[in-house]
Amino acid sequence: MHPTFALPPSFLGGCLSGPPDAAFQIAGIPFDLGTTNRAGARDAPYAVRRASRMLADGANPCGWADPAALSVVDRGDFELALGDIKQSLELIERQAAGIGHLLAIGGDHTITLALLRALVRRTGPVGLIHFDAHLDTWPDNFGQPLAHGSPFRWALEEGLLDGSRVIQVGIRSPVPRDVHEWTLAQGVTIVTAEEVHLLGPEAVSQRIRSVVGEGRTYLSFDIDAIDPGQAPGTGTPEVGGLTPRESQRLLRGLAGINIVGGDVVEVAPQYDATTVTAQIGAQMMFEILALLALAPK
Amino acid sequence: MHPTFALPPSFLGGCLSGPPDAAFQIAGIPFDLGTTNRAGARDAPYAVRRASRMLADGANPCGWADPAALSVVDRGDFELALGDIKQSLELIERQAAGIGHLLAIGGDHTITLALLRALVRRTGPVGLIHFDAHLDTWPDNFGQPLAHGSPFRWALEEGLLDGSRVIQVGIRSPVPRDVHEWTLAQGVTIVTAEEVHLLGPEAVSQRIRSVVGEGRTYLSFDIDAIDPGQAPGTGTPEVGGLTPRESQRLLRGLAGINIVGGDVVEVAPQYDATTVTAQIGAQMMFEILALLALAPK
Amino acid sequence: MHPTFALPPSFLGGCLSGPPDAAFQIAGIPFDLGTTNRAGARDAPYAVRRASRMLADGANPCGWADPAALSVVDRGDFELALGDIKQSLELIERQAAGIGHLLAIGGDHTITLALLRALVRRTGPVGLIHFDAHLDTWPDNFGQPLAHGSPFRWALEEGLLDGSRVIQVGIRSPVPRDVHEWTLAQGVTIVTAEEVHLLGPEAVSQRIRSVVGEGRTYLSFDIDAIDPGQAPGTGTPEVGGLTPRESQRLLRGLAGINIVGGDVVEVAPQYDATTVTAQIGAQMMFEILALLALAPK
Amino acid sequence: MHPTFALPPSFLGGCLSGPPDAAFQIAGIPFDLGTTNRAGARDAPYAVRRASRMLADGANPCGWADPAALSVVDRGDFELALGDIKQSLELIERQAAGIGHLLAIGGDHTITLALLRALVRRTGPVGLIHFDAHLDTWPDNFGQPLAHGSPFRWALEEGLLDGSRVIQVGIRSPVPRDVHEWTLAQGVTIVTAEEVHLLGPEAVSQRIRSVVGEGRTYLSFDIDAIDPGQAPGTGTPEVGGLTPRESQRLLRGLAGINIVGGDVVEVAPQYDATTVTAQIGAQMMFEILALLALAPK
Amino acid sequence: MHPTFALPPSFLGGCLSGPPDAAFQIAGIPFDLGTTNRAGARDAPYAVRRASRMLADGANPCGWADPAALSVVDRGDFELALGDIKQSLELIERQAAGIGHLLAIGGDHTITLALLRALVRRTGPVGLIHFDAHLDTWPDNFGQPLAHGSPFRWALEEGLLDGSRVIQVGIRSPVPRDVHEWTLAQGVTIVTAEEVHLLGPEAVSQRIRSVVGEGRTYLSFDIDAIDPGQAPGTGTPEVGGLTPRESQRLLRGLAGINIVGGDVVEVAPQYDATTVTAQIGAQMMFEILALLALAPK
Amino acid sequence: MHPTFALPPSFLGGCLSGPPDAAFQIAGIPFDLGTTNRAGARDAPYAVRRASRMLADGANPCGWADPAALSVVDRGDFELALGDIKQSLELIERQAAGIGHLLAIGGDHTITLALLRALVRRTGPVGLIHFDAHLDTWPDNFGQPLAHGSPFRWALEEGLLDGSRVIQVGIRSPVPRDVHEWTLAQGVTIVTAEEVHLLGPEAVSQRIRSVVGEGRTYLSFDIDAIDPGQAPGTGTPEVGGLTPRESQRLLRGLAGINIVGGDVVEVAPQYDATTVTAQIGAQMMFEILALLALAPK
Repeated sequence: MHPTFALPPSFLGGCLSGPPDAAFQIAGIPFDLGTTNRAGARDAPYAVRRASRMLADGANPCGWADPAALSVVDRGDFELALGDIKQSLELIERQAAGIGHLLAIGGDHTITLALLRALVRRTGPVGLIHFDAHLDTWPDNFGQPLAHGSPFRWALEEGLLDGSRVIQVGIRSPVPRDVHEWTLAQGVTIVTAEEVHLLGPEAVSQRIRSVVGEGRTYLSFDIDAIDPGQAPGTGTPEVGGLTPRESQRLLRGLAGINIVGGDVVEVAPQYDATTVTAQIGAQMMFEILALLALAPK
Repeated sequence: MHPTFALPPSFLGGCLSGPPDAAFQIAGIPFDLGTTNRAGARDAPYAVRRASRMLADGANPCGWADPAALSVVDRGDFELALGDIKQSLELIERQAAGIGHLLAIGGDHTITLALLRALVRRTGPVGLIHFDAHLDTWPDNFGQPLAHGSPFRWALEEGLLDGSRVIQVGIRSPVPRDVHEWTLAQGVTIVTAEEVHLLGPEAVSQRIRSVVGEGRTYLSFDIDAIDPGQAPGTGTPEVGGLTPRESQRLLRGLAGINIVGGDVVEVAPQYDATTVTAQIGAQMMFEILALLALAPK
Repeated sequence: MHPTFALPPSFLGGCLSGPPDAAFQIAGIPFDLGTTNRAGARDAPYAVRRASRMLADGANPCGWADPAALSVVDRGDFELALGDIKQSLELIERQAAGIGHLLAIGGDHTITLALLRALVRRTGPVGLIHFDAHLDTWPDNFGQPLAHGSPFRWALEEGLLDGSRVIQVGIRSPVPRDVHEWTLAQGVTIVTAEEVHLLGPEAVSQRIRSVVGEGRTYLSFDIDAIDPGQAPGTGTPEVGGLTPRESQRLLRGLAGINIVGGDVVEVAPQYDATTVTAQIGAQMMFEILALLALAPK
Repeated sequence: MHPTFALPPSFLGGCLSGPPDAAFQIAGIPFDLGTTNRAGARDAPYAVRRASRMLADGANPCGWADPAALSVVDRGDFELALGDIKQSLELIERQAAGIGHLLAIGGDHTITLALLRALVRRTGPVGLIHFDAHLDTWPDNFGQPLAHGSPFRWALEEGLLDGSRVIQVGIRSPVPRDVHEWTLAQGVTIVTAEEVHLLGPEAVSQRIRSVVGEGRTYLSFDIDAIDPGQAPGTGTPEVGGLTPRESQRLLRGLAGINIVGGDVVEVAPQYDATTVTAQIGAQMMFEILALLALAPK
Repeated sequence: MHPTFALPPSFLGGCLSGPPDAAFQIAGIPFDLGTTNRAGARDAPYAVRRASRMLADGANPCGWADPAALSVVDRGDFELALGDIKQSLELIERQAAGIGHLLAIGGDHTITLALLRALVRRTGPVGLIHFDAHLDTWPDNFGQPLAHGSPFRWALEEGLLDGSRVIQVGIRSPVPRDVHEWTLAQGVTIVTAEEVHLLGPEAVSQRIRSVVGEGRTYLSFDIDAIDPGQAPGTGTPEVGGLTPRESQRLLRGLAGINIVGGDVVEVAPQYDATTVTAQIGAQMMFEILALLALAPK
Repeated sequence: MHPTFALPPSFLGGCLSGPPDAAFQIAGIPFDLGTTNRAGARDAPYAVRRASRMLADGANPCGWADPAALSVVDRGDFELALGDIKQSLELIERQAAGIGHLLAIGGDHTITLALLRALVRRTGPVGLIHFDAHLDTWPDNFGQPLAHGSPFRWALEEGLLDGSRVIQVGIRSPVPRDVHEWTLAQGVTIVTAEEVHLLGPEAVSQRIRSVVGEGRTYLSFDIDAIDPGQAPGTGTPEVGGLTPRESQRLLRGLAGINIVGGDVVEVAPQYDATTVTAQIGAQMMFEILALLALAPK
């Protein structure tokens, strides 16, 4: 049985017309046991879906890039183990296992580890485009190895990711020197928020393309990549991030990359008095859906 | 096509198990063109359904009074004519026409006129139990006859209600003398909020029972019957109302009355910073569902 | 009689010293029946006037561009027909008819149609500088032709605007292909929000000047032109808009253009937890007043 | 010149029809330099006036007790000395001096000292009906004698009040024993919030009548008399207060008392996310106006 | 002396003067992994301490019942295991073990199980006075046995509580019949919120005294015992609860009972837009401290 | 180790390890009597310290620039004279007098006058880097000379500042011509917010360096330098300010300047619904600490 925070409406309302077994699927994952600062990402699937109604506004609510090419369904929320991180990750992995291309609405960033396990088990290591304020390669989180500061630590350790095809964009939080060095030692490319500002989105998109190349690539968008002045509703805000417009331009510069799955994580509606963070989350979902539609078959 | 504010989740989540043509149906009516003060009741169906998840909490989410006796379905939101009061009322009436027992989530109070028209057309005049801070028998609203201060004016004029079987509870707003006198002249019984406090809920429930008797009766619950100190999220708040607990005791004192339909109206989520008004709206829906289950067959 | 939401304070407090029949007049138009997503713009005239107090801060509260050249009065709010779009537009047109230069505080964007009718009736077709996230040339809005997605459709159809002298800035919402093509076919120039970012405000201001030329020109500023991360209090937010600073630079680049009237619309205080959107609305009012003061006589 | 926070709308909108020199006058006093906990009462005159629009709702907005007997004007806000308590009190006293019957919207409770000085200078000592959570007879406030915990200390010391005709209702805050004893020693009657609950409003109103008798009486309503669960927007909230309904019944039980002036103080809109505290403030203003109308001539 | 807004953020600021090893200790337990609906109780220790500054207002901030009899210290927050319920409960138990009389600020209700284990290990089974909307004797919580719906299930199963000396007050949530019956079968006394209203606080306090008698008794106050209209900031709100004033009268009626420890749990500041729930939490802490001071030695 | 949400509320929690008499000290100054528009900066020291917990997130919470070089202590809040500006400034000056390098958390901008007096009394006139929307060189504030619009007027008049080494960055509010000209006549350099945008942060940092040179320099950061769209929680917001990222780049461009003290002022938590302004305030504190660490010895 689902906990009460997992009674889902639907992404884009009635505009997603895929059958229950569509190749492209959306799922909510209302998990926030891995948060280290402010809780609440469990309510994000609801809030992001609600905010997505604006993207269905106007006479052509489904008018994004080549919808004919993409049959999508919102399958609702994944079942979780209340209060149990390890078992929840197993449940997420199991539910994600059978889905061709999954776009998840988190939930905190811990879930990406389970999603990568499910994906890679089918197909082998992937590249990663990772938008975030934090590296998320800490080996522990106040003593807890399985939490939202660590998904890519274990993904790299477990061989789910090809380090040389991993790029992190928007990075700016304080980090211990050894975590930073370990990450670089895996071959990971790091682009700070300040570098995005100095170089401009087009140059950074080009950099991303050169890192991930033509191989299979996962896209994980942590909403705290964006500046909390514009996207305040998140658990671990860091001043000095990307603007929403830079984020859109970065994503739109990735058309044609071989995206095989993705997620938007860390929206925390409790801290989002104006609902704008949920709107940005929905918009980023929408942009990633367009990338999935434009990916090579 | 529905406007964007009408993408519904579902009342009590997955716990309402009725078939699409169940005798008892719930519908959202996201209409707020009839508001005279603060707009926003269009978002109430969404917010009230969302808040109803707490009522499904625990291991027996559907454990209210005799659920076996009641097969209910949430049919989603009614279609409306954007920006057009008259045509919207016609659409509401048409959609409600085929439903046996309808419990509506408003929307502003204007909608009750259309719901009574649909109901009475099938069955003849009904009695009315009406919780509100306002009489809602104004002949006009800043020049507009069809708005949220007037549904019962026209319902009485059109013979939809049997005035001697109408009782209004929680009344306290300023009102012109002629509107007050016209209402009394129709045989309507008025119980002020202060009288509820002085007499106690049990005596008032008894009073209601004696007014509506055993005949077919409609129950309309305007959330502004409750004090804005405890239910702030509404468009025309009036200081000095009922407490939520008094409201529950009043409703629970009506078990066995022949309720044939009802609504909860005037929740305005924009003014409900703590979400408590939506919670109270959901609770009142729940109490009315129980009354429907307990009504004589 | 005014509805309760139309009890006005005054723009810039006591600093506007024009006589009741001043050539330049400010009016509030608390109309939101044309909103398709979130209601509430009816409260904007109050909130924007309240926020304008900051612009009167300091020892020289009235120290904007050449105030001696401009005699302005805030005439309060226009009377409207509650719940009736068509009749409200007629009332707006009638009240605007006798005013030389009117700067309106909306209200939703539907009102601009009535304001253009009143203006053009006196003087013949005008050019238009239109800041917005949306084209607002939809032929209908969920079935309703007269709503906030359509004012410029009818203004162009009725010959109120000279299409070749119309420019829209900040555009970015989804739109059906035929609406987009119809708009271009009228000779309208469209500048997206992304183009503003790429070209810079100065180049875009120059573009605007070349489109509208020296002829009589109306300026309509929809607050959703600005990014909802910085101006969240609006009914149909679209991620990826202008910054407030870009908007100011765009407007300041228009000094000397023959502005004959204008409006700031779509502020929705219910969604503006920090009041910043009302502040931006007041600032844009202030900038347009300066343009009116600097316009050729 | 007024500070920016003193740009006034008007109580009850256009419904108060008295001439500028009416015998009954309303004034805002946006003063909060005397607050010891949370600042912000300077914004109350604006918020309370704004909230008063609901009391003008309906077709008979001015339909309170015998309006024909009462000619009232809202004269706007008093001028103050920014940042200077002593000089502000002198300014308040001077501006209040010429007004027959003044009903003030505070501001924090410090202002009542100046208002009593102005009143008593004309007419000799008065009785006092004082609703509050606090005695407000502290000799100092963290070292400051002139602040919101002390107005009645000095009013009693200066002989402005006849201690035997002073009654305080709703009292419940912690207080040092010597302050409590000093207050009782002046002949003051103290009724705690708990006693109101136990005795009921009618008995307490009777108690008030017997204390103040038929003499000239001032009525000061500190909004923190009401429970912060229902009136959260205030600077020094104390759990366990009156309900709004109890407060109304208490005031309505005072009809015929010789009220000669009054105030509603300590509304702090910054802490009033739902605006309900401002609504209650406006309602209490309205109830006191009715008492003024019903007072013996 | 500092004004109250400048108090260091421990409970009652600098007014608790006990040494580090005082017999009476306060501790925060920022744990919310056991929440089934809305997360966020982890931030309660901070918010409740912050709100407690009002209780230190005035010249005698420490003037509650017999402070000379009670030497108290706020020892700060307990250490927890991030993301791990079981290990966190062990840590809580270990840290609580050496404390004579502990008053904890939760955190969600799961923590009470650990606190009872620590307490009983030293002294044998205790009685329980339990204020709550929920029984908290569910055997599982969406599959998780160790969560906030179950602390008293295991406390009874483990023999930490003497069922015949357990009383639950304010109960009103839906509950499966078997959970209800199991609870009664342990000898537990249940008093619903409605019964408190009908019987009055004095009669219920008397009932509590007769149930727990003179033996050692723990007092656990779940803030959702109070109506969400007045205490909205909590994770699992239930309409129809106690008022803050009823709660105070209930607690004050318990003077002299042998209280040996206690807690205030389930404040969730994210849902407490007006901060009033934290204020009520601080007030209930204060009332329990007074009971500890008045307990027989 | 504690999770970040359980840090004791001093700046950076337990990460500042200096002794009580450390050369570098942080102090809160909860003073807001000098505000001319919205009150509330008195609550900023609490809110900024609370927000600083995010800067201690991760495994190396103290990992900023060369912490080994800097021994810092948070000494708590300064004592103030409630309701008395002049006496409060004297108290601030006295408490600051003995501190080597002080970084203050305001409070409103009035406090900087007292801080400069304390600093300069020890060491002679200093240069000033001043981030603000306002010049703060008004000779009076609605009649009050000692308020938040005037600190630098008197600092220049008193010879505390060397006008030729003063630079103001982010300026954009309306200002009377004579105040502007007086400021320039003191040799002060003014850089508007628009100039920062046009020139870029690097060029402006270079400009600052050339103005202040190698001499002893104070850094005062008024949070309203930042655009209210991103930092809404302040008393006198002005549209069109710096972004947080520009601010960070400006400050980081000042490494090596001889900073001898500083402050972050004008955060007003009441208007900061998302807490982001407090986060930005904490971040700017952090950046200035780094500058202090990097200053020449």
